Parts: sequence; structure tokens; C-alpha cells
Amino acid sequence: MKGIRRLAQHLDISIGTVSRALNGRPDVKEETRKRVLEAARQFGYVPNQSGRSLRQGTTNIIGFMIQTGSEITGQGDTFFMSVFDGVQEVFARHKLDLVALLCSSQEDPTEYLRRAVARGFADGLILSATRRHDPRVELLAERNIPFVTLGRTLTDAGQPWLDLDFEGMAQASIDRLVARGHRRIAITLPHNDANLGYVFVERCRQALSAHGLILDESLIFRSTPNEAGGYQIGRDLLALEERPTAIVLINETIATGLYRALLEAGVRPGADIAVIGRHSPQANFLSPSLTCFRLSLHDLGIALAETLLSSMPAFAYHYPDAPPNRLWPMELVEGESDALQAHQF
Amino acid sequence: MKGIRRLAQHLDISIGTVSRALNGRPDVKEETRKRVLEAARQFGYVPNQSGRSLRQGTTNIIGFMIQTGSEITGQGDTFFMSVFDGVQEVFARHKLDLVALLCSSQEDPTEYLRRAVARGFADGLILSATRRHDPRVELLAERNIPFVTLGRTLTDAGQPWLDLDFEGMAQASIDRLVARGHRRIAITLPHNDANLGYVFVERCRQALSAHGLILDESLIFRSTPNEAGGYQIGRDLLALEERPTAIVLINETIATGLYRALLEAGVRPGADIAVIGRHSPQANFLSPSLTCFRLSLHDLGIALAETLLSSMPAFAYHYPDAPPNRLWPMELVEGESDALQAHQF
Repeated sequence: MKGIRRLAQHLDISIGTVSRALNGRPDVKEETRKRVLEAARQFGYVPNQSGRSLRQGTTNIIGFMIQTGSEITGQGDTFFMSVFDGVQEVFARHKLDLVALLCSSQEDPTEYLRRAVARGFADGLILSATRRHDPRVELLAERNIPFVTLGRTLTDAGQPWLDLDFEGMAQASIDRLVARGHRRIAITLPHNDANLGYVFVERCRQALSAHGLILDESLIFRSTPNEAGGYQIGRDLLALEERPTAIVLINETIATGLYRALLEAGVRPGADIAVIGRHSPQANFLSPSLTCFRLSLHDLGIALAETLLSSMPAFAYHYPDAPPNRLWPMELVEGESDALQAHQF
Repeated sequence: MKGIRRLAQHLDISIGTVSRALNGRPDVKEETRKRVLEAARQFGYVPNQSGRSLRQGTTNIIGFMIQTGSEITGQGDTFFMSVFDGVQEVFARHKLDLVALLCSSQEDPTEYLRRAVARGFADGLILSATRRHDPRVELLAERNIPFVTLGRTLTDAGQPWLDLDFEGMAQASIDRLVARGHRRIAITLPHNDANLGYVFVERCRQALSAHGLILDESLIFRSTPNEAGGYQIGRDLLALEERPTAIVLINETIATGLYRALLEAGVRPGADIAVIGRHSPQANFLSPSLTCFRLSLHDLGIALAETLLSSMPAFAYHYPDAPPNRLWPMELVEGESDALQAHQF
């Protein structure tokens, strides 16, 4: 209470009011709240987390849970660090700190989260790598902890979410390839029950069907999201008796491995097979250049943070217009890798 | 106490003994400790962090502080995520969780850390991006919080550290280039007062001096650690009246930008200028291939975790042989980018 008492004396208002202002309660005048926060900033007031979280669950920390493990991050992470930058840009306005909760791929994500929640050190959470059915959503809803998911799931607790527009990507890819004469189109999916895989394959099926085509089950390749996974897909694809003339990659990290397997076998993307993928820093260096879907990870991070804060009482009034659910568009960047016209097949 | 009481009843030993065993106190028999930990695991016992940290500062969380910001992670992070994997491999043995403390480059690292420490949610810390003089070291030493630094600093509190062997890299690079006839050798340094810059430039100077050469101040290029920084170095280098015949890059992320600037001007690495850099996933795609220094980031993470734990009373006996200070070697991978012999100059 020492810090709060000092603030209250300085501002000549009651300790209770200072406390309520610091905790973002609605029963404090906006002007008073601003004065208190400004003074707290000047005095370098930092609430002791342990005491506060026991009393009321306010730590000013937001956790961002991601999956790690060498099969995922073996090439470094080219996705989340940029998303974090955007998230932090928003959190900085509110003196919220972002910590990354690194859940090893060896571990059950729900058990990990249960432990993190029991430790009670975050006011809110951002979940990524959503599964088709995701018990983490129920866990956080039960505990009444504000959260947003990056990715959808069938587990519905009315939670806010943002997701990349995998439907849009599937539709645009299939339409584009079919227009160029492709009939045997392969796709890749995650190795696990990530929700995005279900969304993607379903829309690919529908889009093909609208063109009178069927998604051949033997042309669905599952892999870990890394270069080795992409290489294995390339080997498997080359071993098929009847090869596809095109492939659409759901993940951004497999293109490099796929290219390696294809080029080793003398199969050239864009000339011998059409490839459409997702953008990554490595993709800039692929030759022939990769036709890929790109998005601003930084802007995605900003939207994610704003959506979370709009669901937290202490911050909601700053973000009255943040939509609780949002499909984030990806932009097609034309490269050489899908130049192949497939009339000859 | 509920969880502990249940454990004590199940094991038929006193609550005090269970508590001491869970907290890694030395006055518990090893066999008892094992039984308690095993039972705690079976029962899914999770200590409430808020209560525990108030009482005794045990949270089972280790924080890894890194700097973020779009000027650093604009291309994603290809370094820390792999280090985290190694760290987690060790922490998993002890049921310790790793969280990444993401300090924005807009913020003063010491103030950030002061806030994190006040919140008291980590039992130990790993600091990266050490500065020449680093007040964070004094802060943690004063508070008696176990920590290890990835990188050295002149600020000495007797702390354990690991650092990449920038001296070895400087020495090997200079010797190699001088042996190939180079006399005008440029180097790059960080844009800030990162300690590694001091170490690197000092050894470059010494190595050149041993060959009777002097490091030309106009050939020292500072840049942010990203592609844009590398591009700017390339532009600046090309604008010199008397160009260097070789350049050594201290950072792994600037090679791509440097290549772009050079190739745009028709200057080919390995043919028109010798380039030695550091390995990154992107470096795999550079053409001509980059001669670079490589290390296992995963193994570095393992060593970092073991060094930290060896300084924490509850874990030290697991790691009696972990050296408190360690220079981590980097291996030279020969590419085409430094093939240029400079006899003609």
C-alpha cells in the first residue's frame, strides 16, 4: 500500500479512489483516472504482482501462448516475432507487458495452460495454434479469464477470435489453377488436428466441386511445419504414379524443402509443376520466385491486441469498434512458381 | 495447503517434509524428495504461484529476456526461437516453465527488468543483448535473483555467462582474408553499445596489427541488425572512394541486404569483394553461397539452461560440472563469397 498511499497524498484524493482508478474500475471519473495514471507513471509506481493477483487478479501482464519445439522452430520463427511487435505496439499504450508462454510440442497444451492459469500471472491471454476441438477455450471461459484466439475452433465459448482467411486462400488458389488448366491439384495440411487444416481442405473440396472436380485423397499431403516436412512432401509427390500438376501449400515454412526435393529430381516449379504457397522471409530467396499469399504480421498483431483489450472491462472503452471476430485477408503475390499452364495434360 | 495436505496424507509423511521436498530444500532425503515429486506429478499438484512467491519466491518459471521491435524482428527471429528449444529441453526435466520477456526496443531494458522483477514471477532469469555496461546485472545481483547472461559485459557481479566466441570469429576471419592477400578489410558493428561489438572490433584490430595492418576507421560500418541495415552498409561501402576488398559481418541478418545492394551495383560477392558472415536460415539461399560462422543454437540453449540451474541452490547438484563462464565456439562453413584472392590489389 505504500506506493498507493504516496500517490493518494500527492493527488489529494482517497486511497480507495486511486486504487479503483489503477484497477480500471468504471466507477471513477475519466479525468480522475487520467490524473492517477499519469501520477503513477511519474512516480514509477509498479504494483507488486504477487499481492495484487492474490487480491484481484490484476498483473498488467498479457500472455501469448505459442507452441515451440525443434520440429516447429528449427529454422527460427518468422511468424510470431513479427506478430508480437504489433501486439506490443498496442499494449505499450496501456503499460501492459507481453510475455510469451512457450509450450513445448512435447507437452499437452491444455495441461500447460492449466498450470499457467494456476500461477495466475496474466490478466489476459492470447492463444494460438487452435485445434479443431480445443479444451483450452473451455478452461479459460470457466475461469473467467479474458482471452482471444488466433485461429478458430469448434469449441465455442463465445470467445473473440481472429483467423487468417484460409477459405479465401483456398478459393483463390483453386480458381486460379483450374483457370490455367489444372485438374490434378494437390494440397498440404498440418500434421496435427489444427483447425486451419479442416477449414482449408473443406474449402478446397468445395471450390474444386464448383468446377466439377474432386479432391483426390492421394493428393492430400500432411507434414510438420518445417523444411524437412516440405522435403518429405516433395519426395512423396515425386513417387506417385500419376503426379499432380499443381500443389497448394498451407504453411509458409515448407516451400523451401519442397523446392529442394523437386529441384534435386530435376522438376522445376513453374515449368514442370505449379506451386502456390505462403510468404515468409525465406520465400524471398526461392528461385523460381514463389507465388504466395502474404499478410502484414505486424498489423495482425495490432488487431489481435485490440480485440483482446476490447473484451477486457478495464480497456474496452478504448476499443469500441474492434470486431470480436475477424477473418484476416491474405494478398496474392504473383511469382513464377505457378506459371505452368496445364493444357498439355 | 489443500494440495500439499493431500500429498502428505497419501505419502504418510508430514506436510512440512512435503513442502520442503517440493521446494528443493537440502534437508530432505533424496529418496523422499523423489517420492514427493513423483506423487505431486501423479496428483497434478500445481503450487499457486501468487501465494508461493509471496512466501518464498518459488514460481517454477524462468524468464528469458529478449529485445523485440520491428527493426530487430522485422524478418522474424531466426536465433532465439531455436535457443528457446534447447533451454526448454533442460527445463522440462525439472518441471520449470520458460516464458519469454519481450522488451520492446522502444523501452529502457533496465526499467523493463525492474518492473518484471517487482512483479516477482520468475525464479531465475536469462538476459540477452548485454551492453558494454549493463545495469541489469547490478539490479539482479542486488535482489539476489539467480541469472545468467547470454553475452558478456564489463558490469561484473560474478554472474555466470555464456557468449559466442566473437574473438575466435574475428581472428579466423582476419587471418583467412589476410592470407588471401586482402589489406583493406571492412567490418560491421551493432548500432548500439552491445558488448559484442567491443569484443569484435578489438580482436579485429589486434589480428590486423599482428599482420602489420591497421583497421581503417572509415571501414567500420554500424547498422541495425536487419536486412535494411545490411542494404545501407552496402550502399555506404559502394560510395567510398577507395573500397575495401573484403568485409566481415558480425550479425547474421545483414548479409541478405548487403548482397542486394552489391548485386544491384553489379558487384559480385566472391568475385569483386570477399564477404564473410554468420549463418542464418536465409543464408542458405544466398547466391553466391555465403562463407559464414555457424553454431548449434539448440545446444547453446541447453548450455545456457544448465549454467543457470547450476547457480540455483535447488538444482545445482544436478549440474556439478557446468562451467559458470563459457565462450561458445562457432564453426567456419566455407562458401563462395570469400573466394576472391586480392593479389591484384
